[in-house]
Amino acid sequence: MITFNEAQDIICREFEELDFTDTPSELYKPINYILSIGGKRIRPVLTLMACNLFSDDYSKVIKPAVALEVFHNFTLLHDDIMDNANTRRNHPTVHKIWNNNVAILSGDAMCIKAYSFVAQCEPSKLSEIFNIFNRTAIEVCEGQQYDMNFETQENVSIDEYIRMIKLKTAVLIAACLEIGALIGGASREESELLYHYGLNIGLAFQLQDDLLDVYADEVFLGKETGKDIISNKKTFLLIKAIEIASGKDLEELKKWILKKEFDPVEKIRSVRSIYDKLDIKTIVNAKLLEYFSKAEELFQQLKADDKRKTELRKFSDLIKERIF
Amino acid sequence: MITFNEAQDIICREFEELDFTDTPSELYKPINYILSIGGKRIRPVLTLMACNLFSDDYSKVIKPAVALEVFHNFTLLHDDIMDNANTRRNHPTVHKIWNNNVAILSGDAMCIKAYSFVAQCEPSKLSEIFNIFNRTAIEVCEGQQYDMNFETQENVSIDEYIRMIKLKTAVLIAACLEIGALIGGASREESELLYHYGLNIGLAFQLQDDLLDVYADEVFLGKETGKDIISNKKTFLLIKAIEIASGKDLEELKKWILKKEFDPVEKIRSVRSIYDKLDIKTIVNAKLLEYFSKAEELFQQLKADDKRKTELRKFSDLIKERIF
Repeated sequence: MITFNEAQDIICREFEELDFTDTPSELYKPINYILSIGGKRIRPVLTLMACNLFSDDYSKVIKPAVALEVFHNFTLLHDDIMDNANTRRNHPTVHKIWNNNVAILSGDAMCIKAYSFVAQCEPSKLSEIFNIFNRTAIEVCEGQQYDMNFETQENVSIDEYIRMIKLKTAVLIAACLEIGALIGGASREESELLYHYGLNIGLAFQLQDDLLDVYADEVFLGKETGKDIISNKKTFLLIKAIEIASGKDLEELKKWILKKEFDPVEKIRSVRSIYDKLDIKTIVNAKLLEYFSKAEELFQQLKADDKRKTELRKFSDLIKERIF
Repeated sequence: MITFNEAQDIICREFEELDFTDTPSELYKPINYILSIGGKRIRPVLTLMACNLFSDDYSKVIKPAVALEVFHNFTLLHDDIMDNANTRRNHPTVHKIWNNNVAILSGDAMCIKAYSFVAQCEPSKLSEIFNIFNRTAIEVCEGQQYDMNFETQENVSIDEYIRMIKLKTAVLIAACLEIGALIGGASREESELLYHYGLNIGLAFQLQDDLLDVYADEVFLGKETGKDIISNKKTFLLIKAIEIASGKDLEELKKWILKKEFDPVEKIRSVRSIYDKLDIKTIVNAKLLEYFSKAEELFQQLKADDKRKTELRKFSDLIKERIF
């Protein structure tokens, strides 16, 4: 059995050694760059831990775990172009260092490289893992499209928002657990339990991200804060605020949304103070706990060794610690 | 056995029926659009014909054939953003109808959908086909990167140019033949022969494209002509012209390359007349014939039924007909 910390070490080492030296270097430098600036490697660690719930032979899960992380970073690379983001993980984004064309093409190459790692899965499981990977990858694109649609869609409901973050964020975390478990030899039933556990953790994770954009310390977050407020991004916080605000609060909120020219610092402060007045933080935290409880309930049903389960639970605890 | 025309009909019908109705429609409309505006379906027809060289049961090759065409169209979609192209196959490009973000994301989804078709390959061949597909897909990206590098690279040699078009264009045509043959039950030796046959056809095909940009009728071509000349694109024609021109011709050519403001029609006419003076068309045609002869030589070695071989040869004849 490996511990959570050991799993993190194994994955970190794997990515330290991962270096695309093929030519033309112009294609591979941006890939090495985005993979080298870190991130928490949550997805491959989860994949490894899920495998280790059922098997001590975790060597066979490393390549699929790398595939999932490389795919995730590919989506970040392209999302950053679409959002015109300046920084990612405290570093300038690929399209800012190079340009949009480089970011498009290197992203494409990353997506294909992700599939090359999928292809290194053990032959007897290849077809099943490949199918889960495909289903998940297309769902992530669908989620990103819904997210883009929301920019011009006047009314977005909480349900529509939850569907979007489920596709854009939660299904990939869920698929990591499912794929890891299957490679570890889990039954379909167990791997599906883990998938749904992952969905709930993933939804909580995204709601936290929404909170962090408004309330986190910028250095801690690794990217600018308040960006969602400045761009009127329809996050859980804004959608909920519009839903429950009335009178002057609603007026004030709408005024800020419609304002074309403003001082960014003033807008962030003002919108945040409306959120505070409406107690949005408490509402988001309640929703977060709902997802965590559901995840816990599913986790309890899992028929795996308790010691191993404890190691995996350390991960959801780590996410919970991000709660304010 | 199926004839070349029957193969074309089967593939055309397959694409007429292909309609992504999933949601969000904003993601899938551009995919349906680019797949509906046609193209010659050369790649899937080749895949099908290569399979039919060795087997009458061609049903099992349809999905991989679709995968290769969908992948090809994905690369066109992203290339058109990078080249800022206005038209494709006589129709406006996806990023012009919608915008860059839509074209990036729909392209990503197309790439993943291509893999979903690969996944429908018969299980016993999946691993082998998946690996060829991955190797080829990454090579196509490398080719596109070299092509982009050439924009700012001062001197590009003919050898460097050939390597670029081999990666960007020829390997995919070659892989279609290889994958089709393998699914049809060909030996590794036969499928590799077909791969190298495809490489040579693919190189000839791209050199023809370079010629067409300078000499074709715009409606026939389905896109604007003279674009390569206007943008100083380092095609076989321009690289060769710079290599062999001297005195006033070289001076005139360099003058046009350096000119920042010019009448496009005048530039096209002037550069074309330098090409004519240097007899570039004859040189390109000689190179074309070299590739066709090499292809023919490899084709002769192929141990397959003559009738079936004749049908496949009809394809290279069709390409040859594009010669001026």
